[in-house]
Amino acid sequence: MTEPPPAPALAHVAFKPAPALAHVAFKDDARAWFESLRDRLCHAFEAIEDEAAGLSIYGSGAQGRFERTAWTRPTQDNAPMSEGGGGVMSVMRGRVFEKVGVNVSTVMGEFSPEFRGQIHGAAEDPRFWASGISLVAHMASPRVPAAHFNTRMLVTTKGWFGGGGDLTPMKLDAPEAMVDAASFHSAFQAACDRHDPAYYPKYKEWCDRYFFLPHRNEARGAGGIFYDQHFSGDVAADFAFTRDVGLAFLDVYPAIIRARMAEPWTAAERQHQLVRRGRYVEFNLIHDRGTLFGLKTGGNVEAILMSLPPAVAWP
Amino acid sequence: MTEPPPAPALAHVAFKPAPALAHVAFKDDARAWFESLRDRLCHAFEAIEDEAAGLSIYGSGAQGRFERTAWTRPTQDNAPMSEGGGGVMSVMRGRVFEKVGVNVSTVMGEFSPEFRGQIHGAAEDPRFWASGISLVAHMASPRVPAAHFNTRMLVTTKGWFGGGGDLTPMKLDAPEAMVDAASFHSAFQAACDRHDPAYYPKYKEWCDRYFFLPHRNEARGAGGIFYDQHFSGDVAADFAFTRDVGLAFLDVYPAIIRARMAEPWTAAERQHQLVRRGRYVEFNLIHDRGTLFGLKTGGNVEAILMSLPPAVAWP
Repeated sequence: MTEPPPAPALAHVAFKPAPALAHVAFKDDARAWFESLRDRLCHAFEAIEDEAAGLSIYGSGAQGRFERTAWTRPTQDNAPMSEGGGGVMSVMRGRVFEKVGVNVSTVMGEFSPEFRGQIHGAAEDPRFWASGISLVAHMASPRVPAAHFNTRMLVTTKGWFGGGGDLTPMKLDAPEAMVDAASFHSAFQAACDRHDPAYYPKYKEWCDRYFFLPHRNEARGAGGIFYDQHFSGDVAADFAFTRDVGLAFLDVYPAIIRARMAEPWTAAERQHQLVRRGRYVEFNLIHDRGTLFGLKTGGNVEAILMSLPPAVAWP
Repeated sequence: MTEPPPAPALAHVAFKPAPALAHVAFKDDARAWFESLRDRLCHAFEAIEDEAAGLSIYGSGAQGRFERTAWTRPTQDNAPMSEGGGGVMSVMRGRVFEKVGVNVSTVMGEFSPEFRGQIHGAAEDPRFWASGISLVAHMASPRVPAAHFNTRMLVTTKGWFGGGGDLTPMKLDAPEAMVDAASFHSAFQAACDRHDPAYYPKYKEWCDRYFFLPHRNEARGAGGIFYDQHFSGDVAADFAFTRDVGLAFLDVYPAIIRARMAEPWTAAERQHQLVRRGRYVEFNLIHDRGTLFGLKTGGNVEAILMSLPPAVAWP
C-alpha cells in the first residue's frame, strides 16, 4: 500500500502581498497541496480496496492499485495555448472502484486571441498559470454513489481559486441516497462555515445550477458545492478554504463508500446504474465547460476524458 | 414479418413551380417518401433477423422486431421553436441488430430569434417546415460495421434537401473493413453519378470533413456521403437524388450485414467494439450539429439520443 504522505509544509501561507499579484506567491504551495491531496486520496481509496478484499460481491480479482502516467503539453505551433507544464494521471481499476481517476496538472502559457475574452483577467494579458486536482470515481456497486471533486488555482492578471465536489447516487430518491447526500452536504457545509457562513448556500446553489442537464430537465446527482473565481481579497484565507474543501472530501467520501460497500445489489440495480452513467456522459460531453474547454484548447484528451464511466448503457 | 410496402405514389414529382417556393409542392410527397423508406428499411432489417435465426453466435433469444412510438412536439411557451408536428421512433433490439433506431419526423413552426441567423433562409422569415428520416444501427457483432443514414427536406424562405450515410467498421484498417467500405462508397457513388458526376467527390469529401473527431484527430469511420442545402434549381431532380441515396443505402447496408453476420468474433473484438462506440458517443455529443441543435431547440430527446450505442466502454 502507498504510505500516506505527511501534510505539505505551508510556510508561504502567511505571506500576503498586494492582492493584485498575491496569488503568484502561492503557486508553489498550491501545486504542492494539490499533489499532496492526490497522494492522500489515492491512499485512502487503496485502503478501501484492501478492506473489501473479503467481500465476495466484488468477485475474485485482486484489490486495485493506482497506476500513474505523466504527460506534458505537446509542442505545436497552432496550439490554442502556448506550451508549458503537464500533469500526472492516476487511475485505479479495482474491485470496489470500478474506475477512479485522480489527475493533477500544472500548466502555463498564453491564451490564443480566440479564448482571451472568455477567461477572467486574460483579455488584458493572455499569460496564465493554472494548477489543480480533479477526481472522478465510478463505483462497481450501484448502491455506492459516484463522486466528482476538483480544486484549482488560476493566475492571469487576476488570481482565484475554484472547485467543488458533487455526489451522484444512482437513485436520487432512495432513502439511502438521501442519507449519503446529507452526509456529503454536511461535510462541505462545515468546511465552508469555518470560513464564511455565506459560502455554503451560495456554492451549493451554484452546484445545483451547474450540474443540471437541461435537455433532460434533471439534476446530474445530489449536488454538493461548486465555486469559481473565488477571491475574497485574502489569498491565504482562500487557499485555506480550498484546502478545507479538499479535506472535507477526503473525509466524507471514503466514509460514504465504507457505509455502503458491503450491501449486495441486484442485476436490475446494475443495469440502472449503467443507464444513469449515460446521463453522466451526456452532461460531461454536452454541458461541462471544463471538458469542452480542455478539448478545444488542446488539453490532454486521456486526462480530460478519464471522467467517463468504464461501462455505460443507452438501452 | 412486416410486409414491404409498395413504393409511394409520386404524382407531384413532375410539378415544377418557380424555384423560390418549389419545395412547398413537394412536402406531402417528401414526407410520404421518408415514411415509406422507413417501412422498407425496417422490413429489410427484420428479414435479416429472421435469416440469422439459426446462428448460435447470436445467442438463443428470439429474432428482433421493431417497436414504434409516436411523439408530438410538446407545447410550452418558452420553446425555442413554436410547436407543430411530431414523429415516430422505430426501435429494434434484436440478435444481429443490438440496437437500431429509425426515426421519421415532420415538424413545422417558427425559429426563435436566437436561431434564425443560424438557419439558411430563416433570417428573413422564421417559419419553417422539415421532414426527414434518420437511422443509426449498432450491431451485436464487432465484425459488422455500424451505420448511420439520414435524408430530409427543409423549407424556410429557401428550400433544400440534405442527408447522407456513413459506415463505421470497428477496425478501419482491417482488410474486411476496406472491402465493406468500398461496397458502401460504390453504392453511393452510383446513386450520385446517376444525377451529377460532381456530387460524389463533393459529398464524399464533405462526409470525411464532417465525421471527424478533432480532439482525437481521427475519423469516426470509413465515411460515405454527406450533403446539405442541396438545391440544384430543379426540386424534382433533387428529390429524385435524395430518393436514390435512400435506395442505395437500402440496397448496400443489408448486403454488407449479410456478408459478415455469420463470422464468429472474439471477446477482444467485442471489447474493442465497446471502446470504438465510445468514440461514436464522443462525436455525437460533442460535435454533431444535428444532435446539439435538436437538444437545444427542444427536440424529442429520446428520438435524438436514440443514436447512442446500447453498450459502451471507456475502460
